[in-house]
Amino acid sequence: MDKVLIINGPNLNWVGKREPDVYGSQSLEVYLEGLGDSVDVVFTNLEGEIINLLQEAEENPMYTGIIINAGGYSHTSIAIADTIRAMSKPIISVHVSNVFNRETQRHTDLIAAACMGFVGGFGLKSYEIALHALQV
Amino acid sequence: MDKVLIINGPNLNWVGKREPDVYGSQSLEVYLEGLGDSVDVVFTNLEGEIINLLQEAEENPMYTGIIINAGGYSHTSIAIADTIRAMSKPIISVHVSNVFNRETQRHTDLIAAACMGFVGGFGLKSYEIALHALQV
Amino acid sequence: MDKVLIINGPNLNWVGKREPDVYGSQSLEVYLEGLGDSVDVVFTNLEGEIINLLQEAEENPMYTGIIINAGGYSHTSIAIADTIRAMSKPIISVHVSNVFNRETQRHTDLIAAACMGFVGGFGLKSYEIALHALQV
Amino acid sequence: MDKVLIINGPNLNWVGKREPDVYGSQSLEVYLEGLGDSVDVVFTNLEGEIINLLQEAEENPMYTGIIINAGGYSHTSIAIADTIRAMSKPIISVHVSNVFNRETQRHTDLIAAACMGFVGGFGLKSYEIALHALQV
Amino acid sequence: MDKVLIINGPNLNWVGKREPDVYGSQSLEVYLEGLGDSVDVVFTNLEGEIINLLQEAEENPMYTGIIINAGGYSHTSIAIADTIRAMSKPIISVHVSNVFNRETQRHTDLIAAACMGFVGGFGLKSYEIALHALQV
Amino acid sequence: MDKVLIINGPNLNWVGKREPDVYGSQSLEVYLEGLGDSVDVVFTNLEGEIINLLQEAEENPMYTGIIINAGGYSHTSIAIADTIRAMSKPIISVHVSNVFNRETQRHTDLIAAACMGFVGGFGLKSYEIALHALQV
Amino acid sequence: MDKVLIINGPNLNWVGKREPDVYGSQSLEVYLEGLGDSVDVVFTNLEGEIINLLQEAEENPMYTGIIINAGGYSHTSIAIADTIRAMSKPIISVHVSNVFNRETQRHTDLIAAACMGFVGGFGLKSYEIALHALQV
Amino acid sequence: MDKVLIINGPNLNWVGKREPDVYGSQSLEVYLEGLGDSVDVVFTNLEGEIINLLQEAEENPMYTGIIINAGGYSHTSIAIADTIRAMSKPIISVHVSNVFNRETQRHTDLIAAACMGFVGGFGLKSYEIALHALQV
Amino acid sequence: MDKVLIINGPNLNWVGKREPDVYGSQSLEVYLEGLGDSVDVVFTNLEGEIINLLQEAEENPMYTGIIINAGGYSHTSIAIADTIRAMSKPIISVHVSNVFNRETQRHTDLIAAACMGFVGGFGLKSYEIALHALQV
Amino acid sequence: MDKVLIINGPNLNWVGKREPDVYGSQSLEVYLEGLGDSVDVVFTNLEGEIINLLQEAEENPMYTGIIINAGGYSHTSIAIADTIRAMSKPIISVHVSNVFNRETQRHTDLIAAACMGFVGGFGLKSYEIALHALQV
Amino acid sequence: MDKVLIINGPNLNWVGKREPDVYGSQSLEVYLEGLGDSVDVVFTNLEGEIINLLQEAEENPMYTGIIINAGGYSHTSIAIADTIRAMSKPIISVHVSNVFNRETQRHTDLIAAACMGFVGGFGLKSYEIALHALQV
Amino acid sequence: MDKVLIINGPNLNWVGKREPDVYGSQSLEVYLEGLGDSVDVVFTNLEGEIINLLQEAEENPMYTGIIINAGGYSHTSIAIADTIRAMSKPIISVHVSNVFNRETQRHTDLIAAACMGFVGGFGLKSYEIALHALQV
Repeated sequence: MDKVLIINGPNLNWVGKREPDVYGSQSLEVYLEGLGDSVDVVFTNLEGEIINLLQEAEENPMYTGIIINAGGYSHTSIAIADTIRAMSKPIISVHVSNVFNRETQRHTDLIAAACMGFVGGFGLKSYEIALHALQV
Repeated sequence: MDKVLIINGPNLNWVGKREPDVYGSQSLEVYLEGLGDSVDVVFTNLEGEIINLLQEAEENPMYTGIIINAGGYSHTSIAIADTIRAMSKPIISVHVSNVFNRETQRHTDLIAAACMGFVGGFGLKSYEIALHALQV
Repeated sequence: MDKVLIINGPNLNWVGKREPDVYGSQSLEVYLEGLGDSVDVVFTNLEGEIINLLQEAEENPMYTGIIINAGGYSHTSIAIADTIRAMSKPIISVHVSNVFNRETQRHTDLIAAACMGFVGGFGLKSYEIALHALQV
Repeated sequence: MDKVLIINGPNLNWVGKREPDVYGSQSLEVYLEGLGDSVDVVFTNLEGEIINLLQEAEENPMYTGIIINAGGYSHTSIAIADTIRAMSKPIISVHVSNVFNRETQRHTDLIAAACMGFVGGFGLKSYEIALHALQV
Repeated sequence: MDKVLIINGPNLNWVGKREPDVYGSQSLEVYLEGLGDSVDVVFTNLEGEIINLLQEAEENPMYTGIIINAGGYSHTSIAIADTIRAMSKPIISVHVSNVFNRETQRHTDLIAAACMGFVGGFGLKSYEIALHALQV
Repeated sequence: MDKVLIINGPNLNWVGKREPDVYGSQSLEVYLEGLGDSVDVVFTNLEGEIINLLQEAEENPMYTGIIINAGGYSHTSIAIADTIRAMSKPIISVHVSNVFNRETQRHTDLIAAACMGFVGGFGLKSYEIALHALQV
Repeated sequence: MDKVLIINGPNLNWVGKREPDVYGSQSLEVYLEGLGDSVDVVFTNLEGEIINLLQEAEENPMYTGIIINAGGYSHTSIAIADTIRAMSKPIISVHVSNVFNRETQRHTDLIAAACMGFVGGFGLKSYEIALHALQV
Repeated sequence: MDKVLIINGPNLNWVGKREPDVYGSQSLEVYLEGLGDSVDVVFTNLEGEIINLLQEAEENPMYTGIIINAGGYSHTSIAIADTIRAMSKPIISVHVSNVFNRETQRHTDLIAAACMGFVGGFGLKSYEIALHALQV
Repeated sequence: MDKVLIINGPNLNWVGKREPDVYGSQSLEVYLEGLGDSVDVVFTNLEGEIINLLQEAEENPMYTGIIINAGGYSHTSIAIADTIRAMSKPIISVHVSNVFNRETQRHTDLIAAACMGFVGGFGLKSYEIALHALQV
Repeated sequence: MDKVLIINGPNLNWVGKREPDVYGSQSLEVYLEGLGDSVDVVFTNLEGEIINLLQEAEENPMYTGIIINAGGYSHTSIAIADTIRAMSKPIISVHVSNVFNRETQRHTDLIAAACMGFVGGFGLKSYEIALHALQV
Repeated sequence: MDKVLIINGPNLNWVGKREPDVYGSQSLEVYLEGLGDSVDVVFTNLEGEIINLLQEAEENPMYTGIIINAGGYSHTSIAIADTIRAMSKPIISVHVSNVFNRETQRHTDLIAAACMGFVGGFGLKSYEIALHALQV
Repeated sequence: MDKVLIINGPNLNWVGKREPDVYGSQSLEVYLEGLGDSVDVVFTNLEGEIINLLQEAEENPMYTGIIINAGGYSHTSIAIADTIRAMSKPIISVHVSNVFNRETQRHTDLIAAACMGFVGGFGLKSYEIALHALQV
């Protein structure tokens, strides 16, 4: 069965629980479950674990594409970007908020630069849109 | 009838005709015609004309949303970004290529920062994805 | 009859209609009409059109001075500043808001640097003050 | 009796005596005396004394507004700007010359950013214009 | 029983063993044991593990406050700072040495900026002082 | 008949009339007429109009080459540079003055970087030299 | 009798009276009086006067330590930092607010870098904590 | 038996499998096995795990030296560099490619700066050369 | 009687008493007394007081030249530099240590740039050399 | 006999022999011989020798103009630029490639800024065009 | 006979004689003699002479590889880097000290970026290691 | 016989002949001859030759001190500064003009930072003053 892996980085397990003015009050975990069986969802706060997950997804034939929200690592992680550049599967960068409209430190996105494409600013819907982008 | 206005900035009339290694060889004009009657499409090379179009769209009840690809002005135009921030309709920034993976001068996107959300890197499909994003 | 030309750049036609927390809720167009017959008022969203207007005003003996609010072009337009530096008539830069107290990108004012003098932060009254400055 | 306090910072006591190519040859002290009884005028070369004067003016009911020319401290004094931001009376920043058309170190104006509004470049008349701005 | 959690980041398990000219020669582990039963102490070299610990502490009613010394991550980790900003419990940033008096790369402290308050430069006593700060 | 199109940007219509210390006192319009029938000459103050002119010249078989003096847009216009990079005809950047010997903001030349070659500093003769360069 | 001298810089005499959203509404002067006879408290708006006070405190055997809140000078005064580096008594830098969480210009703290240690972000309690730090 | 520990950071397990134009097509894992029993080899994608490995190697008398290729963490990890500076054993930084001839973000090498010496650009042979460097 | 005024800024009254590794152990006050009756010597820690002293010296016919060591203000004071540029008497900047060989913040010298000439790095002898420079 | 001296800096003796993708495959030495007896041609790899040659050419009445291609020194040599600024003869800066379209370090051209004019990007023909520029 | 040429730049003739805390006390000249007949060794203080030596070595069939320590020119010489990039023989950059652990101005290494590989920080042994690197 | 060596860098042989507004109209060569037999004077335009001269002077017992005016190399030459730092004899940096009051590129002085002391801005007299400084 073809699947898409959705990798969520640091603090995204808290989306819907905290800082609702930035991220809304709907639980991201619950929302992603609602996307159905064609997606697998993981959450991790560890930069290196994101790299492990990406490497495994690249080598797992079940996954035809990856959606990644690297959270705060989006702006600093050369290492994750290196992983993505070395991969052959389509990978899409996703953000819940419009990161370019926030603090200066979030205006550089190393992960988006390494992915095939990027989607952001649509709240939790950003994930659905990214999934759509993988399928058109 | 509800419509979406798609505004294309400088040199986008040449997409499909020139620099196929960056933008592909399919005509953007032809592609956008294929999106159907629910979209209106304009092309202009003038920064100020983009502002005029945005202001008119804001005040035209026919348009329920706007998709903008400001091309080279994306990285320098405080004036267009000011217009967008003053608007109440949903506006999405679109790019054909992954601008963050190109020259440094394209890594800052003033227009995306002012929009509700942003989509890019999917080739011409970026427009269809943005349209989808307006509708979900 | 001696007159002053008031040139308004991008989005200033929206002052009073949008973003009242920044620019107030009084219409700039209406306000400027109230300044009387000794002023001519133009609005344009095009950078190059501002240059055209400045060049014509310089060569039109009717105008004894110019007041310019270049809006978002204030911070990026070397071209408008070049026009002003080449002129002999007195030109005053005006801002409705206190641009130096806003985002960093508005802290550099190329237009004010090229003008004889600058006035800003007084809301719509900035125009009346600039007019006064031309007359004392 | 309602009054405006005019605070002049470092070296402004020399305006009219020195560097006439930059500041003109009219004495600023004499000029300000000519503005009449409704203004009080002080000169000081000390950054901290400017803060003292501002604090006293804020608490002195006689003063309805303040005009400040912080001279060379305009570009470096976070402390004076802090005082102004904490005040409730209207304060206007004034410059004799067009500081934005001079050396790079004068292009940042911390004081103007903290004031209600700013006026500059009109020679000594800048003070009269600022006074007018307080009264309209 | 109310407790404070003390989280120590990379290389802090070596304080007292290595680089005594910077950190002194007393073992941090031993010192913190001496603070008594009202504190729990953890050491980890992993950035993401610090995030895990912070998230668990926020949700564990036993902890009324957190003291964090993020070590080398203090200067680069947007992700840890994001966690702290999303928390409601009081969190204090601690440093053994005066980081602002060391190399330039240590002059920016993303973690201290996100915490309620910061204490540093007092050697191991910085922890006791932070504990005191939580209690007054 | 083969022709070269000479495109002049903002304020170049004033060369010979204003700022003779920078640009000399000979009219650029008159000078270019003197170059004969093998050149067509246009002047415009609008950035986007320059793009229009470039696009039309690329597609007009009459023109075998283009000479462009983008004036103040030379230093800021990513959009014009994008047009030039997408063209196949030889294009030469020209400046009347030695822009690299003027203010810092003129030291970056985005247009020259996109052209086949560049010529500058020779006064009005720069155009004749560029024409020569197209022909050798 | 051993005492600690508390030196307060520009605008700190206004804490409790103005900008309560930043500094709270309790008077700093009253708060510091409450710390008892073992502290002496001074307020001054003059940078150089802070230096005078530090030099006198260093040479006055009554003072065993100094607590300094240099206010707006914290971020610019090389001169005060030079004084502190030349002293042998323990000196602690204090801030009422979390300066690292405010505007960029407050993220560099020259005074904290020169002191033995630093405390900040705890409101007025920062002073009591610093006093505690001197005593443990 | 004396041994050297070779620590490989993020994505180095993919050398030989991916991006052969940058890293060649020989498996790094296989290559390092070929170096014989006097070396131990580890791979990890986690920054903090590299710190754990370094700390354990410092305290394990079996290891007389360490070779580290920190991959993408080389350019950002203050924390790893802190560990290395606190160690007494000889540590050599290794790179497969010539990092200084790649993107700007790879031109700063915090790890090499903390090590005894550095070797890079020789492909997989860089490891053998580093091993040689430990032995001469 | 013709005299030279020697103005010493912040902390120079401590030269010879503190930080002997930087400034030596000879008292500057005693040293300058030894220069004889043809010099007047003042010390002040206040930036504005230095401006006062310079203005008075300019207008006092007794002084034929000024030697200034602005200490820590050398690197930040636009205001003092403004005073010096407005003066007609010869003024020499002096430093005891070689400021350009110390921390980065001391590498810019606004005062030296405004003076006729500069001398530094010779310890206390720098003053005698500056005096000699005024006399040759 | 009037002559033009053509000075070629570092590595230009290799043009035509190496890096043909950048500089073409025609020998620069052979090309320049083809320009005839009215030019003298020199090649040197030494920065100071270029200065010697410029000084001698200025003082040698045989030379009516100089063409210089300073190669890699174009971007760093204040010293050569100083020589050119001190000369009275017309000097033209030449580049074979379009330096502004290459690496960032080549975007600053100190030599072109000091010359009367500049020509570049036309391959070896750049020299003939510069010669033409000297003669029109 | 196959040989390696070792080129030493400015001040390397003093290694072993001066600054032993940085470079050790063994003479580099004597050390390199000890490497045997398969190496030729040159020392020069002239940047351009290094270029001459590199060009000659490239064209001298006797040399199969080059080792270069460009000393202080490593951080500034675009010209030497240009030469190396144009060469086909293997070239290795060598440093005695760990330049990345010294002053900021030594953290950029233009020469290492142009070479095949780089070795540094091992004292004089760096040369032997580089020689080994050429031979494996 | 004890002597001082005066080393003059690029273009200083032209002082007195060219650019009299910057350097005056007196020949530096003639002036230095007038300083008598106790000084030796050399002029060179080559950076590396300055290093050679410094190294020879250090090893020549006849010279008790060195005065250096490195001209345009003052602002860029890490290599010359390295030589000076490795020397034990007293070396003084000299400038004819006040370099800190000229273009930005002359505000950094690597040579002055490496010398014992610096003198500048006194025209040709700077040399005499430096000589005096060596003798007191």
